[in-house]
This record gives sequence, C-alpha cells and structure tokens, in this order.
Amino acid sequence: MKRPILSAAIVMLSAFAQVASADEPIQPIKPPASINLGMAELGKKLYFDPRLSKSGFISCNSCHNLSMGGTDNIPTSIGDKWQQGPINAPTVLNSSLNVAQFWDGRAADLKAQAGGPIANPGEMAFSHTLALHVLESIPAYVREFNLVFGKSKITIDEVTQAIAEFEKTLVTPNSRFDQWLLGNKDALAKNEVEGYALFKDSGCVACHNGEAVGGNSFQKMGLVEPYKTTAAAQGRADVTGQDADRFNFKVPTLRNVEMTYPYFHDGAANTLTEAVDIMGRLQLGKKFTKEENAKIVAFLKTLTGDQPSFTLPILPPSTDATPRPTPFVK
Amino acid sequence: MKRPILSAAIVMLSAFAQVASADEPIQPIKPPASINLGMAELGKKLYFDPRLSKSGFISCNSCHNLSMGGTDNIPTSIGDKWQQGPINAPTVLNSSLNVAQFWDGRAADLKAQAGGPIANPGEMAFSHTLALHVLESIPAYVREFNLVFGKSKITIDEVTQAIAEFEKTLVTPNSRFDQWLLGNKDALAKNEVEGYALFKDSGCVACHNGEAVGGNSFQKMGLVEPYKTTAAAQGRADVTGQDADRFNFKVPTLRNVEMTYPYFHDGAANTLTEAVDIMGRLQLGKKFTKEENAKIVAFLKTLTGDQPSFTLPILPPSTDATPRPTPFVK
Repeated sequence: MKRPILSAAIVMLSAFAQVASADEPIQPIKPPASINLGMAELGKKLYFDPRLSKSGFISCNSCHNLSMGGTDNIPTSIGDKWQQGPINAPTVLNSSLNVAQFWDGRAADLKAQAGGPIANPGEMAFSHTLALHVLESIPAYVREFNLVFGKSKITIDEVTQAIAEFEKTLVTPNSRFDQWLLGNKDALAKNEVEGYALFKDSGCVACHNGEAVGGNSFQKMGLVEPYKTTAAAQGRADVTGQDADRFNFKVPTLRNVEMTYPYFHDGAANTLTEAVDIMGRLQLGKKFTKEENAKIVAFLKTLTGDQPSFTLPILPPSTDATPRPTPFVK
Repeated sequence: MKRPILSAAIVMLSAFAQVASADEPIQPIKPPASINLGMAELGKKLYFDPRLSKSGFISCNSCHNLSMGGTDNIPTSIGDKWQQGPINAPTVLNSSLNVAQFWDGRAADLKAQAGGPIANPGEMAFSHTLALHVLESIPAYVREFNLVFGKSKITIDEVTQAIAEFEKTLVTPNSRFDQWLLGNKDALAKNEVEGYALFKDSGCVACHNGEAVGGNSFQKMGLVEPYKTTAAAQGRADVTGQDADRFNFKVPTLRNVEMTYPYFHDGAANTLTEAVDIMGRLQLGKKFTKEENAKIVAFLKTLTGDQPSFTLPILPPSTDATPRPTPFVK
C-alpha cells in the first residue's frame, strides 16, 4: 500500500485526534491496524480471481470494483448469465467498520460475507467445493495458503478469511473532512463547513455518524414518509421474519459517497442532490432548500478519502488439472 | 511500471544481444521505448473503465485481463447481456509486436483495434458517440485529455490513441528464455533447452519466430490435416473475401503462453500438451512422442516474462451530467 501522506496523518492523529474530534459525531478514519500482510496479499489475489465463479468471468472486484469506489456504479449488480441482482452492491471500502455485512446484516462480519456471493446462484453461481477444486489444482495457490495458514489443505474458511483480511486494508483515511477534523481548518471551504453544520443540525448525524459516517446501525427506510420502490428486499425482516423489521436496512457509510452512486438499497437515486432531498423528506420530514442541499452535497464530497493503492495482482495460471470455467453451460 | 530487473536486463541487452541472439529465430523482447507516459496513464484509466460499455460492466480489462496473461482464459468471451463471442480473445500482452490486430488482422494497429469492441453489439455494445458523451461529462477526464492532447474537445481518435499507448507498455521482457538468449545459460534447464531444439528442428519456428514468437504472419490453420471446429470464423477470408484466405489466421504469439489458455482461435485446446500435439499433426504432419511433447511444453513455459506491474487506476467518478449505464435495457 502506497500512502505517501499516511505517516504525516498518523502524526497528526496522535497530536490532534482527541482534541479535534472528541466533540464531533464523526470520527477520522484510522489506518488499518493488526493486518496480516501475507494473508492480505493472498486475499487480494482471491478478490481479483474470477475462477471463484462458475463462468470464470466474475470476481469480487467485478461488483466491488476498487477502481470505482468499491462498487459497480449500477443500480443492481450483474450476476452469472447477466442475471439482475435484487439490490445495490454496497461499497467494500471501509466495510470492516460496518456493524454487520449486506444491507440486511445477514452476515456477521467480512469473513461470513465473503462466502456468500461465490455460492449464490444469482451472483458467482459456483459452490464452495468447486471453488476449492480450482484452488487446490494450482500449486502456487496451495503453497501460498500453506505459507499463510500453515496447512496443506485449503478449506473455504481460509479462503474467506484471506479475502476478509484483504478487505480490512480497504479503508480510506485522509479525506479532506478528516484533515479538518484533525485540526487543518483550511482543508474545508466555507460552504462545506456550513454543509456539515446543516448535516448535524438537521439530524442526518443521528444515523450517519462514527468513523464510517454510517454502517453502525439499522434504520427504517421511509420513517416519516414511506419509501416507494419496486425492489422486493425487506431489509432486516428478511433475516428475522419479524414484521417490525420491514424496511429496516443497514445505514450505508457515507465515506467516498461521491464515488458510490447510485444510492439507496435499490440504487434508485442517481445523484447526491436527489439522495439528500429524498433522505431529508422521508427520514427527517424536512425539505432542504436548493442552497441547503448544495451545501450538504459539498460537505459529502469532502468525505472522499485516499483510495486503496496497490499493484494489480498477477494470478497464478491454471494447470492441466484445473477444472475449466463453464460460462455458457446451464 | 515497477520492473526491478529491467535495468539489469538493459545492460545485458547492450552487452549480449547481438552476440547471443543473432543466430536464433527468436529475439529477446525489448522493453517499450518512446512511450508518452501521460498518454499511457490516461489510456490505463480508459482500459479499466467499464463506462465505455453500454452496461457499465465491461471494460477492456474484462476480456483482456492483465491479472491473467492479458486474456480471459475462457474459450470465447462474454459480451453485453452474456452474449457468447465468436472467437477466443487474443492476449493484449506484446500485442504491439503483432503485424496486425484481431485473429483475422482486420485492424492495422492497436489504435484501430481499440475502437472495435466499444461499438461491437456483441461485446461492449456501446457507440463511440455515447462513450464520448460519458467522457465529456467527467471534468477530470476532460482535463486529462486536454493535458495530454492539448485540445479541449475529446474525439474517439484520442480515446483509442491513449488506449493504444497504454497497450504499448504491456510487453513482457525478461522471461527465462530471454535471459538464456542474452547469455545466462543457467536460466534454462536441460529439458527446456532440448525442447527449444525440438521446437526449431521440427519447424514450429517457421511461424513462431521473432520477438513475440509469432504474431508476425498469417498462416493456414490445418495445413497438413484439416482443423475441425464449430467456430464460424474464416480468418483472413472474412476480411478479403478471397476463398484462398479461408482459415488463414494470424499466428498467435507464444509469449506467456502458459497464462493464455485455452488455445487456438476457437479456444478448443485446454492444455499446452493438447495444443502442441494438434499443431504437430495438423501443421507439420508430425506426431510428437510424449517425451518430445513434454520437452516442447517445458520450453514454452520459459516464455513467461515479467508481467505488467502497475497500480490499479482509480477512475474519476461520474457527475450528475454523466449518462448512466443501461445494463438491463434492451
């Protein structure tokens, strides 16, 4: 990871963090700690490896594209055989800070999440067993798993653990807003500071707070006014079966939100202006003026942090023994 | 580009190249020269940008994946709406050394090639006009095009020129075979040198020669025995309309061939063992023994060079004015 400004940021963290952020509902993102680098490197390869899908075409990075804010920038994702996904792909950036994974929180953590899409018939359409057959047939992978986990046998546990370890590195510190929080008052322009004040005073921070500016609670979509959508997803109710949980979705992080369009669980809002307007009305019963909306949007754009910076991984080639992908077989 | 061994290789080049390679039908790959770095950086972004496709999901890198030898490792590619492509995606690695682009050579150079898939209804399914609308709506792109080309207006000419410039950087010097050619006789094992001798003596070098070990001529697929395939592609005949050109395909490069499976224009051969066997029989009227085949395969695997090494590009986000992709609209 090449983050030239990181060491400076760390110095600033120690000097200012408690002073600058203690009173604020949003905290600066901390660089990732306790990372197992060997495991993260292996996880990076797996994250980019489309051989974990039936077609050999879809990798984690297909829908959580690290060139594009950790998402695919389309309303709902494209799965095996161009199936239309039921929900907007949430960003993988800063996902380690989420209280749980998926919009409905059905996975407790990144490791639990990582196995889902591989075996989901509408996404990568493979199975854990078949994915392991592929990996076991590639000596370079077997050696790397052995190096990292000290075992010659690969199981799905190691696969998902490695992917999760890589994903833990995908945090985005050093946004202009964090620089401001950490004491650099020149980092924000006047309208951006005013946007932040509006964001706090209007109640947006009730849900969008903490390091990730969201991601740490479930809230009802359409609190004051109902949210109209054709998407079938019911949020937490799909997990708990409780009617009271209907439309309770995980509050998305607003970090890098300029890059993670379109917005909401159904991807129905194309622009931040739209999203802020809808959130104001439906969640807060508040109609922002054009000027207020523009200021909040200007503030939100200051939440774009340093994007993950790493060398594109080179994947070990398949061998004669590797099962071949079957993109066009039913 | 981070290539630690490159400077050493350059020194070796000057010292040994003429001595070592003059008598050999294969020449060491030279590192790319005369690269416009700003243009290549812009081209790298475009190469990874799926917004050049109708769906917002398919980029150049989808089918010419730089993590996987510059190809997609499936027999025929997946296009918009999961359409099955008619032909195997050739590797982009060292494609600047090709006499022409595409299996049938219908594009004279990389620049002419780059525009093809964007507008091909079976591939990225977009149009040049629509792709330009996307780029023009993103100020960061407009500025970068202006910086590189000195013009405020983007045309498809600049787009394809930038992609081609990036592709010119995708050469893979420093394979073990090249080290051997350049005088390091320890770089190859005995069976690999024997494989190279067989490759020369059997006549494989008649077509697979030069820097790219191929890519510099068109030859008939199925010279001694006919090649049986269900693929409709007719090779050069599709371009010239001449019956004599039927099944004349561009000879593929064998550089990095261990990574560019499956083989042939229809992707029908899964392994190098299969490919060598079929080539021997159909092109040379020669049935290689198991031992000969294994030696040739061992030689071919020494042709894997340094893979392109660069930081994954971060794409400038779309703006409110950017036309949105339409992955599920007919």
